[in-house]
Amino acid sequence: MSLLIVGSVALDSVATPKGKVEDALGGSATYFSIAAKHFAPEVNVVAVIGEDFPKRHVDLLLGRGINLDGLEIKPGKTFRWAGVYDESFGDPETLDTQLNVFEQFAPCLPESYCGCGFVFLGNIDPTLQRQVVSQVKSPVLVAADTMNFWIEGKLDELKELLKEIDLLLINAMEVRLLSGEKSLLKGARKILDMRPKALVIKRGEFGTLMVTRDGLFALPAYPIEEVIDPTGAGDSFAGGFMGYLAMRGAVNETELKRAVVAGTVIASFNVEGFSIERLSSIKRDDIRARMKHFREITEFTVPEI
Amino acid sequence: MSLLIVGSVALDSVATPKGKVEDALGGSATYFSIAAKHFAPEVNVVAVIGEDFPKRHVDLLLGRGINLDGLEIKPGKTFRWAGVYDESFGDPETLDTQLNVFEQFAPCLPESYCGCGFVFLGNIDPTLQRQVVSQVKSPVLVAADTMNFWIEGKLDELKELLKEIDLLLINAMEVRLLSGEKSLLKGARKILDMRPKALVIKRGEFGTLMVTRDGLFALPAYPIEEVIDPTGAGDSFAGGFMGYLAMRGAVNETELKRAVVAGTVIASFNVEGFSIERLSSIKRDDIRARMKHFREITEFTVPEI
Repeated sequence: MSLLIVGSVALDSVATPKGKVEDALGGSATYFSIAAKHFAPEVNVVAVIGEDFPKRHVDLLLGRGINLDGLEIKPGKTFRWAGVYDESFGDPETLDTQLNVFEQFAPCLPESYCGCGFVFLGNIDPTLQRQVVSQVKSPVLVAADTMNFWIEGKLDELKELLKEIDLLLINAMEVRLLSGEKSLLKGARKILDMRPKALVIKRGEFGTLMVTRDGLFALPAYPIEEVIDPTGAGDSFAGGFMGYLAMRGAVNETELKRAVVAGTVIASFNVEGFSIERLSSIKRDDIRARMKHFREITEFTVPEI
Repeated sequence: MSLLIVGSVALDSVATPKGKVEDALGGSATYFSIAAKHFAPEVNVVAVIGEDFPKRHVDLLLGRGINLDGLEIKPGKTFRWAGVYDESFGDPETLDTQLNVFEQFAPCLPESYCGCGFVFLGNIDPTLQRQVVSQVKSPVLVAADTMNFWIEGKLDELKELLKEIDLLLINAMEVRLLSGEKSLLKGARKILDMRPKALVIKRGEFGTLMVTRDGLFALPAYPIEEVIDPTGAGDSFAGGFMGYLAMRGAVNETELKRAVVAGTVIASFNVEGFSIERLSSIKRDDIRARMKHFREITEFTVPEI
């Protein structure tokens, strides 16, 4: 089934202990769409860029079969972000954020996108996220990302959004902030009471916890030999997750778990290179092999006691 | 097979957002032995206490069938620790440490302990850990815990110890410190080159990574509804891990993985109560049920792509 992503396309300047890049292709919609396209037959992007956005980046995305009918070009400059990671590869220090054309982003779906079965609302103002939902006709699954900025600044609007989506991607700190609960599990259940059917709690290098009404799924991260650049790990996870579900066209406990695995594996490739280098060079067989290896290194039998 | 633990027995004063206890039973050998005794038929403790140590604590350990022939009573006071956990339940703030009789601890094994098949060297001076190893006759498995204090202060002695043990329990920060490698996996392999056959890397609420010459095993933590007191989580993990292996009497990849599961499950109970409250009230059936549940919430099938 076709998949819709609304998010940012950006030019990132990133430094890590392994090197640096300047004005490299980035943004949530970029990472998401390249990750998702490894699985989903049709990935449709809604985003905005400025007149300075290099044509080679557009060509790269088009060349991967990603639909850019919803990519607006506006007068002005493209969204830029600059950040530095230290040796822990934890949260980066932001050196510069220039929203530019992204500041006035008002996502408008091309007519051809309105029938998308799977919808992912990247981390933008919940008011805009709701506007996107209202433009899609009877989707199978709507998922959203959010962040502390919106939880603290637009809580009411975010709560309205939660009534309109099926699945929320969130980190542990945000679960506690949104629910007011110290316990992660209790907090997650409180958010499920606000309507979403599933919460996918991202814990970076420590894995993922999915909480649904029917149960729990705990998955460690795939152990990486050498992290190069963590930028886009969360967005490529989301892309792998949604892309897999869109490819299968079905949403049930088994497929949701597999989607978490798909997201984890795709994200593990992403952090092995700067920008989209590694994410765009892997093949279906690389992904398959890593999924199989992941199964092997996490498998156990119940202890006999 | 019989299991030997050398470590501390202490009186802990702990405050967490869920309450507090004063002079409660604690120490690595305490948590370890109670955890291990859920599995191992024979658990032998080597530790030291002062004359002020309450008889009821000794009776509790003896009542659980733990062998205290190696528990020395020395003139002076028992090791005391006081700490506070904040709402993140991360590393505690230490308010007070009084080593007391533990300062002069020179572990001496009763003759009856020298034939133990499984040996765990709690986190003490590596010189003392080596003295213990030298007193044990042909053990099946010797495992050790350590910490940054010894890596930084007694590196040569610790490296000698590594040549004499089979398995090291360590956290991610310590792997990096001991190996000088930023990458966890590379660092772990470098430590395996120093002789141990396996490294069990504890990541607290984020699970465990075991690295052996033959492979990897990644396990998330068991998701807890409500953490009460994290004190002793690492020691009860170690006790469950070693106790399970001693019960099975065999060390192979399958049993090592199951031992990590056993340690994780036992540690998950431990943090649900202050001191040893929860750890000492659970039954074999509680452990079995949680192991089974743990399997269910971590199981997945490889995505079909």
